[in-house]
Amino acid sequence: MRPSGRNLSEMRAVSIETGVTKHAEGSCLIKMGDTHVLCTASVEERVPPFIKGSGLGWVTAEYGMLPRSTSSRMRREATSGKQGGRTVEIQRLIGRSLRAGVDRVAMGERQITVDCDVIQADGGTRCASITGGWVALRMAVNKLMKVGDIKTDPLISPVAAISCGMYAGQAVLDLDYPEDSEAGVDGNFILRGDGQLIEVQMSAEGATFSRDQMAQLMDLAEKGVNELVAAQLAAFA
Amino acid sequence: MRPSGRNLSEMRAVSIETGVTKHAEGSCLIKMGDTHVLCTASVEERVPPFIKGSGLGWVTAEYGMLPRSTSSRMRREATSGKQGGRTVEIQRLIGRSLRAGVDRVAMGERQITVDCDVIQADGGTRCASITGGWVALRMAVNKLMKVGDIKTDPLISPVAAISCGMYAGQAVLDLDYPEDSEAGVDGNFILRGDGQLIEVQMSAEGATFSRDQMAQLMDLAEKGVNELVAAQLAAFA
Amino acid sequence: MRPSGRNLSEMRAVSIETGVTKHAEGSCLIKMGDTHVLCTASVEERVPPFIKGSGLGWVTAEYGMLPRSTSSRMRREATSGKQGGRTVEIQRLIGRSLRAGVDRVAMGERQITVDCDVIQADGGTRCASITGGWVALRMAVNKLMKVGDIKTDPLISPVAAISCGMYAGQAVLDLDYPEDSEAGVDGNFILRGDGQLIEVQMSAEGATFSRDQMAQLMDLAEKGVNELVAAQLAAFA
Amino acid sequence: MRPSGRNLSEMRAVSIETGVTKHAEGSCLIKMGDTHVLCTASVEERVPPFIKGSGLGWVTAEYGMLPRSTSSRMRREATSGKQGGRTVEIQRLIGRSLRAGVDRVAMGERQITVDCDVIQADGGTRCASITGGWVALRMAVNKLMKVGDIKTDPLISPVAAISCGMYAGQAVLDLDYPEDSEAGVDGNFILRGDGQLIEVQMSAEGATFSRDQMAQLMDLAEKGVNELVAAQLAAFA
Amino acid sequence: MRPSGRNLSEMRAVSIETGVTKHAEGSCLIKMGDTHVLCTASVEERVPPFIKGSGLGWVTAEYGMLPRSTSSRMRREATSGKQGGRTVEIQRLIGRSLRAGVDRVAMGERQITVDCDVIQADGGTRCASITGGWVALRMAVNKLMKVGDIKTDPLISPVAAISCGMYAGQAVLDLDYPEDSEAGVDGNFILRGDGQLIEVQMSAEGATFSRDQMAQLMDLAEKGVNELVAAQLAAFA
Amino acid sequence: MRPSGRNLSEMRAVSIETGVTKHAEGSCLIKMGDTHVLCTASVEERVPPFIKGSGLGWVTAEYGMLPRSTSSRMRREATSGKQGGRTVEIQRLIGRSLRAGVDRVAMGERQITVDCDVIQADGGTRCASITGGWVALRMAVNKLMKVGDIKTDPLISPVAAISCGMYAGQAVLDLDYPEDSEAGVDGNFILRGDGQLIEVQMSAEGATFSRDQMAQLMDLAEKGVNELVAAQLAAFA
Repeated sequence: MRPSGRNLSEMRAVSIETGVTKHAEGSCLIKMGDTHVLCTASVEERVPPFIKGSGLGWVTAEYGMLPRSTSSRMRREATSGKQGGRTVEIQRLIGRSLRAGVDRVAMGERQITVDCDVIQADGGTRCASITGGWVALRMAVNKLMKVGDIKTDPLISPVAAISCGMYAGQAVLDLDYPEDSEAGVDGNFILRGDGQLIEVQMSAEGATFSRDQMAQLMDLAEKGVNELVAAQLAAFA
Repeated sequence: MRPSGRNLSEMRAVSIETGVTKHAEGSCLIKMGDTHVLCTASVEERVPPFIKGSGLGWVTAEYGMLPRSTSSRMRREATSGKQGGRTVEIQRLIGRSLRAGVDRVAMGERQITVDCDVIQADGGTRCASITGGWVALRMAVNKLMKVGDIKTDPLISPVAAISCGMYAGQAVLDLDYPEDSEAGVDGNFILRGDGQLIEVQMSAEGATFSRDQMAQLMDLAEKGVNELVAAQLAAFA
Repeated sequence: MRPSGRNLSEMRAVSIETGVTKHAEGSCLIKMGDTHVLCTASVEERVPPFIKGSGLGWVTAEYGMLPRSTSSRMRREATSGKQGGRTVEIQRLIGRSLRAGVDRVAMGERQITVDCDVIQADGGTRCASITGGWVALRMAVNKLMKVGDIKTDPLISPVAAISCGMYAGQAVLDLDYPEDSEAGVDGNFILRGDGQLIEVQMSAEGATFSRDQMAQLMDLAEKGVNELVAAQLAAFA
Repeated sequence: MRPSGRNLSEMRAVSIETGVTKHAEGSCLIKMGDTHVLCTASVEERVPPFIKGSGLGWVTAEYGMLPRSTSSRMRREATSGKQGGRTVEIQRLIGRSLRAGVDRVAMGERQITVDCDVIQADGGTRCASITGGWVALRMAVNKLMKVGDIKTDPLISPVAAISCGMYAGQAVLDLDYPEDSEAGVDGNFILRGDGQLIEVQMSAEGATFSRDQMAQLMDLAEKGVNELVAAQLAAFA
Repeated sequence: MRPSGRNLSEMRAVSIETGVTKHAEGSCLIKMGDTHVLCTASVEERVPPFIKGSGLGWVTAEYGMLPRSTSSRMRREATSGKQGGRTVEIQRLIGRSLRAGVDRVAMGERQITVDCDVIQADGGTRCASITGGWVALRMAVNKLMKVGDIKTDPLISPVAAISCGMYAGQAVLDLDYPEDSEAGVDGNFILRGDGQLIEVQMSAEGATFSRDQMAQLMDLAEKGVNELVAAQLAAFA
Repeated sequence: MRPSGRNLSEMRAVSIETGVTKHAEGSCLIKMGDTHVLCTASVEERVPPFIKGSGLGWVTAEYGMLPRSTSSRMRREATSGKQGGRTVEIQRLIGRSLRAGVDRVAMGERQITVDCDVIQADGGTRCASITGGWVALRMAVNKLMKVGDIKTDPLISPVAAISCGMYAGQAVLDLDYPEDSEAGVDGNFILRGDGQLIEVQMSAEGATFSRDQMAQLMDLAEKGVNELVAAQLAAFA
């Protein structure tokens, strides 16, 4: 029995509201249950030094949590003088995942920065950031295509992410915070809408897992990502 | 003629939505036109070392802007390794202003941290932060009084803030971004609901002002704060 | 009765000694009673990126306190790894104030950095820094005019600053440290020699003030700045 | 055909030399071909605040690369003022992986820090660090058991790690640097000697992968880890 | 011929003015020609953790240069976020040198911090800091003895320092800046008033030196320190 | 009697193994008894700004200690956010010393960075770093001469360093850690193979020394450096 009463393979309610800030080229507020992330996509002309002159585009991401997005107040990273290890890991993952859905030649030599800021956290913030981040990216690309700066759509397929884990001995989909803090094994699965895998991270803290369990989690993740991609596409309808 | 078409003494539309995050003891989303700030109040048992054992309470504030709250993307302060000078100035001002409305003996030896995070900026973010911050503070105090941790209401009077400035030679109320970037003189006025002044900051960049102009701006500010206090109280109705 | 025995509208003894270091283009040691600040002006060819190629000049300021300028030793900011919030606020104020007295076109595309280092502190260091900083700036500009690098005097009018506050219920001029630590309301007033206001900062900690009190403090400030401007001009005689 | 001429499922030559520094409680120099990592284990009495008084032990890890361990000299992290994102990710992975093989109750309330310093890099440094780190940990635990500070062996099973990836369309075991820089998909597999999985990280940069390819890489990894565990045990013979 | 016209063994004019700040327990302004350093000694009750409870005293030092103490303006260390390597070296040397003249048992468990801030630099600032620092220390100790906090004089003998170097092929005493920037070999010699050596640092940049030259410089240094000790003692007369 | 049983003028066993890493242009592992330092020399085309276009070469050095090179684990400097004062002092000394043996015109406008990383420490790490660093530098220069990038040998004479000190009242050569922690006076002597002195640093902590003792230590140092130069040259045989 899950704390939320959900079935083992039941995801939380997903909502994606687009166009939530007037300045960003793309933006959305994604809610996975009580996890709320504001995602914006910013188009910038400058590219990182290592691709200057290559004609290739770049997608990068940054991640942050508002101090009181969590149950007890966290110290603001701007005051502690640096981004913590967890933050750095997550934003590298978001950037890498989104790039796997992009044709960087078609994108042209420009950079899109996806900012994911957690307004309220209840588990699964990195997955929500990727899923919502893709929506913001899609909007920004649409805008560039509309004005003719990009000719061919560089977005190959939607990118979405979901967590699964072993909770109380059973494989469950879309861990919320109470489950996440109890789960001995949890994984993040990033897939494209065409079913291809981009990244799989399965990790045990104080436990281990078998290949068989790995397969069960993988099955759940495929189901979850299918639902998320539907929600992403619906946000544009 | 103001860019927005407003009258000289007309404030932007104000909206204050309370209870916007489930974790914080107090929270609101304040909108002053296109300036949107999320304010949360967090009650903490620890107090700063300089008041430990004094029996007095402390209210402090932190301020941040999401990277794409602005027209072009700003660098995230967490990645630049420190809070900029402007951020530090603003959060010191917010804390100082809110404390001026608090009876620190009645509050008891505890700390309330008010976080003001700008979701979308269009001028006047520090004033919106103070006005919204007080609403979040009021909610947190109400919660402490309800459970009996605080016996006597420590909030003397509402605290609200508004900017005024000389725009195109005329004194105007509540500068938005297009006005703010043109105004040679602008001021921030923080008042209590009982009409007492807490802080006045008038500053000229590339200009100066006379005592007479100072009085005009002050008159506008008093009008604006009266309207803001009404909005604060209405948010609890 | 003031701790120093001064009358309510009596300033401390002011002394301004120019040419105190051989390297700087302009320098002075200003003493306001026991507050001693060493001010230097350094002419630099490089300008900040945001005015490069504009033909406009820039005046900026930095502020520091020697570790034992205060009653008990302060930690050196160079060892704590950053300038504190108070330091940043003060040096922004000094730079902004001095710029208000400068015709940046006449100055030409160059930068003058005014460094204000507090040798001994007894209240009012920011005001002494502005008043002394203007003298150092005046000397550096004179030198540039003498060699013909600047043709038209870019200094519109002297800039000077004074603090006033409510001490023991009365408006007093030029707070020293014992008064400053007791005053519920204090203000810094920056004016030009021609009587125009540049910046007014009035702030209450643990108190509030009325518009009437605001006017009293303003009157004192005008008197004080007149005396300071006389002292600035006398330093060149 | 692999650049090194190895078969698809052939690992590089492994050598593990123990006791290479006189100060550390455990130490080894592990060589996976031209990748050389010095691993030390340091027993410390202090534990992190979050387990103080719990009776539980803690294993943590730090990772570094000597500036000229790489083909062109890298900037020393001590001079750039912080550990980079990649470093932080790797050392968190090493610590998490080693803890999965530890009975923290049997270990008792103490901390063992495993330092992994790359002397020479040729791909796979994080996997070599985990495999060598476990050997250093084993030695330190043996020493604690010998003197009676630990009664029951807290090391459940050896922990070892290997990378696999898709190189030129084929699944290959133990990527060296030339393969790693070309591989579109690579994974790190951390397993215990008893076959249980601890962590699986599969990641695509500029590519994607299928569930079938995932299974192939997993098969290779199981083969590789078996060989590594044999080498770990042989190091103590 | 020396740029200043001094004889080979002639020191610059030395002046030591005591009691220059009202807050510090000891203070002086030392001038060695155009090198001016403000030295203060601050008595503090807290001692560093490594001597807590030992009954021993500690003397430490910090060193800084005002931004325009030099010919062209230097960046303020507080803004660059850390003390540079040269600063750290110098302040470690000052502290070590002064401690060599102190009986730490007689001093009692307290700390005296000597701050040396360079107002104007013209070569030899570290030596002037040591010589002036001892005067400030002497004053602070005298004050502690006067009130009975210290019973037995802990200052064994005065400590003073002088630089010597090979300039244009000749050994010269007390290098000023024009000599220092040309000298291939220069040394700092710290001695006690009783003739014992505390520290000798001889260093060649783009040159080397012989044992014979080493002896010549040593002879000059002994002469110079004798004169400095006389000036130190005269400052108290 | 020395703790190690060595004679007063007996150095520890020296071993220098060259070519220990495949990437660096020059490298060696130097062992002075139980002090082991890995030295690499990296040739880089970029030179520091202050010599750009001068045609002169530059040799610089960096120094680090592995966390468990010492008896108890040290904090990694990369995690503490900066290099400590001791590290900065040592690496400045290494660079300065090596440059004294280099004809910077013959070297040509390029930079060689010598990295000295302490694998195991038992006293005298800075001296071992200089002696081993020169061997790495020699190898890198040989490689540049072999390919014709350098025509004339820029290395004037070998550079080596040794520590001496007063231990239990007697002058001893090559202090190991137990001696170093007891010695009241210790010195580092850097010489060239031709007998010229490069740097002499003699320092007393809690003691002083006479000119006569200075001469005894100097005699020992000359003996030691002769032996070290022989070992350096033998490493190339």
